Amino acid sequence: MLLGRVVGTLVSTRKIESIEGLKLLVVQPVTTGNRPAKGYVIAIDVVGANTGEIVLYSQGSATRQTPETDKCPVDGLITAIVDTWEVGGKEVYNKSGSEKPA
Amino acid sequence: MLLGRVVGTLVSTRKIESIEGLKLLVVQPVTTGNRPAKGYVIAIDVVGANTGEIVLYSQGSATRQTPETDKCPVDGLITAIVDTWEVGGKEVYNKSGSEKPA
Amino acid sequence: MLLGRVVGTLVSTRKIESIEGLKLLVVQPVTTGNRPAKGYVIAIDVVGANTGEIVLYSQGSATRQTPETDKCPVDGLITAIVDTWEVGGKEVYNKSGSEKPA
Amino acid sequence: MLLGRVVGTLVSTRKIESIEGLKLLVVQPVTTGNRPAKGYVIAIDVVGANTGEIVLYSQGSATRQTPETDKCPVDGLITAIVDTWEVGGKEVYNKSGSEKPA
Amino acid sequence: MLLGRVVGTLVSTRKIESIEGLKLLVVQPVTTGNRPAKGYVIAIDVVGANTGEIVLYSQGSATRQTPETDKCPVDGLITAIVDTWEVGGKEVYNKSGSEKPA
Repeated sequence: MLLGRVVGTLVSTRKIESIEGLKLLVVQPVTTGNRPAKGYVIAIDVVGANTGEIVLYSQGSATRQTPETDKCPVDGLITAIVDTWEVGGKEVYNKSGSEKPA
Repeated sequence: MLLGRVVGTLVSTRKIESIEGLKLLVVQPVTTGNRPAKGYVIAIDVVGANTGEIVLYSQGSATRQTPETDKCPVDGLITAIVDTWEVGGKEVYNKSGSEKPA
Repeated sequence: MLLGRVVGTLVSTRKIESIEGLKLLVVQPVTTGNRPAKGYVIAIDVVGANTGEIVLYSQGSATRQTPETDKCPVDGLITAIVDTWEVGGKEVYNKSGSEKPA
Repeated sequence: MLLGRVVGTLVSTRKIESIEGLKLLVVQPVTTGNRPAKGYVIAIDVVGANTGEIVLYSQGSATRQTPETDKCPVDGLITAIVDTWEVGGKEVYNKSGSEKPA
Repeated sequence: MLLGRVVGTLVSTRKIESIEGLKLLVVQPVTTGNRPAKGYVIAIDVVGANTGEIVLYSQGSATRQTPETDKCPVDGLITAIVDTWEVGGKEVYNKSGSEKPA
């Protein structure tokens, strides 16, 4: 899994029937230092992620392991909204902290 | 999933039997800024995408999650024709708009 | 799926039993402009591709979706021999044409 | 599978229900020369890996082949804690040795 | 599938139970010209490959398609020991030949 920031939304009316009703978000991958990384993914959201939030996302067949996405032709899924992570004993990101700058 | 522009078509008469009748399109990946990205994919189309349209496509086993592609040896699928997407609150692409330049 | 040119063959006598008898070809990926791209794949051939031919190939679990490769530990498969493709309304490749240079 | 060093931990309270209780670690890939490689993965840990340890990790559907991760939408898994490896007949890494520098 | 040279071995005592007893080898990918390529994989060996041998390896779910690796959380497998391959009608590698330099 990788870390990313939700940066946008995508709308489509003509699509494969099984993905009707699934929310599609534009996700910008970030490094473990919380800096933008290369590329992007369009991921399904079933956890209620909002623009600006840092999320964990899966790709490949993992994407279909939820009741909402089972047997859907999708290969990107937001699996969690991240609260905090640390690298080398030092907190890199804290969702609360980033919302209340000192 | 990734975004791409349909740029061409591909024809083959000698192929694995289960993919007979599937439409094959040449897709040019695009960035979230709607600029051409590296590489390409040859994807199955079951939603009726036309050349020039921006689509969402899946890769890997997701490709087989439709009635038309079930158990087919394919690993690229157009899942949706994109109407619009926005990044950072700003609309990047609008299918209607792009067809009717101001 | 991607496009490639069959450039060689590979022989192995000591291998996993389930892949006995499968033909292994060396495939050079090509761009949509029919120029050599980076890397290579060793792919199973069940459609009778010959050296020099342009083929379409799949990777990952798609590879096992044929009677010959079902449950085999393989991750590259030639799915079709390409007749022609066009990009931007212009024919890039034509199998007949390339065999009968003007 | 690839080699990596466990460099951190990640916490999330809002996530897909099936991954509740799974431990998430930040893993820095390393080369066979035990030097940091590009990128990172957020991987599930079911073997009790600690920060600083060198581990072997899998990606893709392999990640779901444990009782704890079965049917979970995850695509990174620590499969083993590495004791030692050698390349070209020369030991590159030894967990005991690295804990007791001469 | 890709070609690689077996360059080392890896030992782990603490690991996911289902992979107990599986042999883990360090594989250096090679080009079709038999030169070292980027990266590496740690692959399961069930065909009895030795250090120095050129092998064919699979990744992803293909890895689990053997009796020994079924349902194991692994994503790299040596599928064959290569005898010979040719590119453009010219033999690039011959296992016998490489063992008996002229």
